[in-house]
Amino acid sequence: MAEIETALAQVAAEMAEARDRGSVATYIPQLGKVDPQRFGIAVAMNDGRVFAEGDADEPFSIQSVSKVFTLTLALGKIGDSLWQRVGREPSGNPFNSIVQLEHEHGIPRNPFVNAGAIVVTDVLLAGHQPREAIGEILRFVQFLCDDDSVYIDRSVAASEQATGFRNYALANYMRSFGNLTHAPEMALGVYFHHCAFAMTCRQLALAGRYLANGGRHSGTGHTVISTERARRINALMLTCGHYDGSGEFAFRVGIPGKSGVGGGILAVVPGVASIAVWSPGLNANGNSKLGSLALERLAKVMNWSVFAP
Amino acid sequence: MAEIETALAQVAAEMAEARDRGSVATYIPQLGKVDPQRFGIAVAMNDGRVFAEGDADEPFSIQSVSKVFTLTLALGKIGDSLWQRVGREPSGNPFNSIVQLEHEHGIPRNPFVNAGAIVVTDVLLAGHQPREAIGEILRFVQFLCDDDSVYIDRSVAASEQATGFRNYALANYMRSFGNLTHAPEMALGVYFHHCAFAMTCRQLALAGRYLANGGRHSGTGHTVISTERARRINALMLTCGHYDGSGEFAFRVGIPGKSGVGGGILAVVPGVASIAVWSPGLNANGNSKLGSLALERLAKVMNWSVFAP
Amino acid sequence: MAEIETALAQVAAEMAEARDRGSVATYIPQLGKVDPQRFGIAVAMNDGRVFAEGDADEPFSIQSVSKVFTLTLALGKIGDSLWQRVGREPSGNPFNSIVQLEHEHGIPRNPFVNAGAIVVTDVLLAGHQPREAIGEILRFVQFLCDDDSVYIDRSVAASEQATGFRNYALANYMRSFGNLTHAPEMALGVYFHHCAFAMTCRQLALAGRYLANGGRHSGTGHTVISTERARRINALMLTCGHYDGSGEFAFRVGIPGKSGVGGGILAVVPGVASIAVWSPGLNANGNSKLGSLALERLAKVMNWSVFAP
Amino acid sequence: MAEIETALAQVAAEMAEARDRGSVATYIPQLGKVDPQRFGIAVAMNDGRVFAEGDADEPFSIQSVSKVFTLTLALGKIGDSLWQRVGREPSGNPFNSIVQLEHEHGIPRNPFVNAGAIVVTDVLLAGHQPREAIGEILRFVQFLCDDDSVYIDRSVAASEQATGFRNYALANYMRSFGNLTHAPEMALGVYFHHCAFAMTCRQLALAGRYLANGGRHSGTGHTVISTERARRINALMLTCGHYDGSGEFAFRVGIPGKSGVGGGILAVVPGVASIAVWSPGLNANGNSKLGSLALERLAKVMNWSVFAP
Repeated sequence: MAEIETALAQVAAEMAEARDRGSVATYIPQLGKVDPQRFGIAVAMNDGRVFAEGDADEPFSIQSVSKVFTLTLALGKIGDSLWQRVGREPSGNPFNSIVQLEHEHGIPRNPFVNAGAIVVTDVLLAGHQPREAIGEILRFVQFLCDDDSVYIDRSVAASEQATGFRNYALANYMRSFGNLTHAPEMALGVYFHHCAFAMTCRQLALAGRYLANGGRHSGTGHTVISTERARRINALMLTCGHYDGSGEFAFRVGIPGKSGVGGGILAVVPGVASIAVWSPGLNANGNSKLGSLALERLAKVMNWSVFAP
Repeated sequence: MAEIETALAQVAAEMAEARDRGSVATYIPQLGKVDPQRFGIAVAMNDGRVFAEGDADEPFSIQSVSKVFTLTLALGKIGDSLWQRVGREPSGNPFNSIVQLEHEHGIPRNPFVNAGAIVVTDVLLAGHQPREAIGEILRFVQFLCDDDSVYIDRSVAASEQATGFRNYALANYMRSFGNLTHAPEMALGVYFHHCAFAMTCRQLALAGRYLANGGRHSGTGHTVISTERARRINALMLTCGHYDGSGEFAFRVGIPGKSGVGGGILAVVPGVASIAVWSPGLNANGNSKLGSLALERLAKVMNWSVFAP
Repeated sequence: MAEIETALAQVAAEMAEARDRGSVATYIPQLGKVDPQRFGIAVAMNDGRVFAEGDADEPFSIQSVSKVFTLTLALGKIGDSLWQRVGREPSGNPFNSIVQLEHEHGIPRNPFVNAGAIVVTDVLLAGHQPREAIGEILRFVQFLCDDDSVYIDRSVAASEQATGFRNYALANYMRSFGNLTHAPEMALGVYFHHCAFAMTCRQLALAGRYLANGGRHSGTGHTVISTERARRINALMLTCGHYDGSGEFAFRVGIPGKSGVGGGILAVVPGVASIAVWSPGLNANGNSKLGSLALERLAKVMNWSVFAP
Repeated sequence: MAEIETALAQVAAEMAEARDRGSVATYIPQLGKVDPQRFGIAVAMNDGRVFAEGDADEPFSIQSVSKVFTLTLALGKIGDSLWQRVGREPSGNPFNSIVQLEHEHGIPRNPFVNAGAIVVTDVLLAGHQPREAIGEILRFVQFLCDDDSVYIDRSVAASEQATGFRNYALANYMRSFGNLTHAPEMALGVYFHHCAFAMTCRQLALAGRYLANGGRHSGTGHTVISTERARRINALMLTCGHYDGSGEFAFRVGIPGKSGVGGGILAVVPGVASIAVWSPGLNANGNSKLGSLALERLAKVMNWSVFAP
């Protein structure tokens, strides 16, 4: 097994050379403006050490990676009753597919496809104004990474609010089945804002430490979530964290991960480390092309796989 | 963490009490005759010890569990070119669904749904007569568990051959897309026979040791498959091993597993143990009801989860 | 062949006896309040005679029947370029299905499923404020039946506007594919209002005369639409006018017709008559149960079928 | 309205000039050998006159046009109980789609998609050996056109039997739902043979006369089927006779028709004429490209439309 510093430097160097970097998401206009040459990676070891390479301190739009944090919050809020409104199975469909909702009466397949994450957000809205709910999620993420500089990129949120017609469709569709308790615009208002959180790789890696450490914040020692729930969130990340490319990621990389169309991926090596990587170009499934590749390389060199002896 | 003997006895005792044992598969008439009260479990530790409880020495029809062994053989035979003919993604559909094949031009989602396993069998047929291919698979499984008494239950094979119309449909359908190189009856002839292998829990747990041990046979030390491939088969078992209940199994049990409609499940704790469990009653997704529950209990007590620190 | 007066009286008498009258639509709350005992029928012969029975002078919500009139207007406005945005094939799916839209990139199957009718409405909005577009459609229908008392039931429109989440989903979904040029709320605002037109059977039968008469208003002699277009609208009514029950209606009744969830059906006997029937109880496909039956009986007695020699 | 001789000559001349003639079906190898320049048309008027142009006396493979005759026979044999096993709705899917069967439990949408026609054939097999059933269907068609020279092109039947994997898939799939009473190979054996009937346009137009004449053979005066059933078969031809292009055909041509992948179409002008046209090149929906166009032109010139006043 290699030293993490060496491994990380080697992976970053290899990625800097990469010619085919995928395509930057353009369906959210604001995201289309990001420079595809960016690449950053940060590793927060359970022992407290943090390593970083490349653009690891440049904030990017975490987008769907935020679904890990909202799921954690929602489970803390209403517990396993959440699973009456959202499933736990891979979808076998693109992230924004609506077909499955029609066949399964408005119950999304899992909390990481858009529809499922909108339901999770709807849960977090209960008893709150949208502004309060957004604030609660933001403070939770700031707490997780112990860094108050995490902020909301309002131009990204506004961009999605103006153009996220598919998400409006999903929300209204679930509402028609009674699986949304707030007005679609309200739930989506919160959803678009937590997707627009801007974080650096370093912050994101730090925020993910509780998942690598059995639910306990490896920095402060605070319990964020029970050990069983931390495991189960990892399980969901592995089976559903990369949309229709989840099987491929599990096959190639072999650790739980959650990607976002901003090009970020949060990955977890249980018992060892939390990793954040960012490169804006996406592959055909909407996951960061170089991010996936960097994690595959790093996991191989470090022998990090949940499937290894 | 508990002692394995104690844990196993406790789980077996709990299962003996279970009232709701699921429904025995009836779509293969021969399987419908099995006594739903049966329950067996065996654990083959990487250190060589083997533990068993209940009907662990009674042979049962392993059915789809055999797909793990045929996949292993096919990867050994043609390597990663297999993945041009079969995908690596969870299907989001029942095991015998044909819908996905129409939408994806005859390429099955993964090697563990029926369609995918039929393609794998087609690979193993190349250059062989069906009888020879069946013999090769049988000898491989006998080698894996170091027990020549594994046999083919010909009445089960005949039962499927006479009634497996869905599988004939799948095979012919893939043939129409050119994704089957032999006549459907030939590929299915081999497929029905390897699904009809009769094994005990003890044999099955022993046969799975290479997956818990990085591809090396923990008994003899022979390398069955490379470490990377062993990992990847584990990854596929985790994401796709329980059909449309794979996410649920990963969520609840947290280790790779492959189920069969005969009520068997082979599960793997990488680095630790290979487990086989059998109880004929199935849940709604076609996976052993008590088998899944027993694995959930055992994994919890033993703290066996690939997602745990 | 029978006399129309006799036939009509006989059919009305038979319907008055009917025990199983279907279920009144409840998904638009306002519609759920209508008395299921209502039944009316009116026939406007091409020769100018009009016959009516039952509650033929009681206004009801025409709902999707209005799609015939908006299609007529839109074809007049932009001609056959409409068919670049909406298809002409039966959908094989329920009226509010979204599955087909995902598979066919936001192009609805035909102008009579909800999605297609929303596109047609979007066409009519071009260059107008919603209020003006609604006014234009209303005046057109008033002109067709030569009766200014046709009105908009604003409580029905408001009811749909507050609860029509499926339609919001469809509109947003098409917007995400670029197949809606106005904001979804604007297009739906107009759509909900023309669906909320309140008309009597007599008015509706009169309004449909141009379709029975080669595009010419049989009362005034004005040309509403070309003969070829009138035929083609009839063809669309026959193949797509009853959602997933269109084949059944063509099979049993044998004449073009368009139904609405308010329980109305407009049917056309080319060269002979325009018929409107109303009974609020619906069958499983969302078409008026007694309305369909009454048309089947009447067509049989009168030997009215486009498929008869 | 034009004279039929003139109109026919004019249409044939126009077709002879056509550059884009579509693509000859190649999925049945034997059909791929047909010369795409062929074009024939024949019209059998109810008054007994027969007109023909082009290659109207050259036999071609009628393929799915035979489904009209088997449906007629099956309705004569078991009456409306047929509709318990096959629907009457347009499918909204290609002719050989299997998706709908999975969603609707093995009940095909209508008797003109492949799956539905296989069920119809299964009905005709009851109490017969395949050879007898084929003979019965052949004699029926010979009787209808009063010409014993109609024959089975055995090379086409053999070609399909060797390569018709999709149809084997459909048959086995329906068998798995219990909606096929004979072995799939038996039902398909008969199916492939009646699809391989070789007929000329003249023979086919003559065979269709009963549909244009209320069920009575306009030549001999024999009643082939009741008037109501003749109408209903016409209705099914209009709504389902051109697979996923049925709406388009109804829209453009406006008369009932049934196409086959051999390039033939049988069309019916109720009360007036039976028409057969043949040109081997197909459009994207699998219907004869020039055949459809010729019927559109002819129907327009002759003012033949079931939707016209």
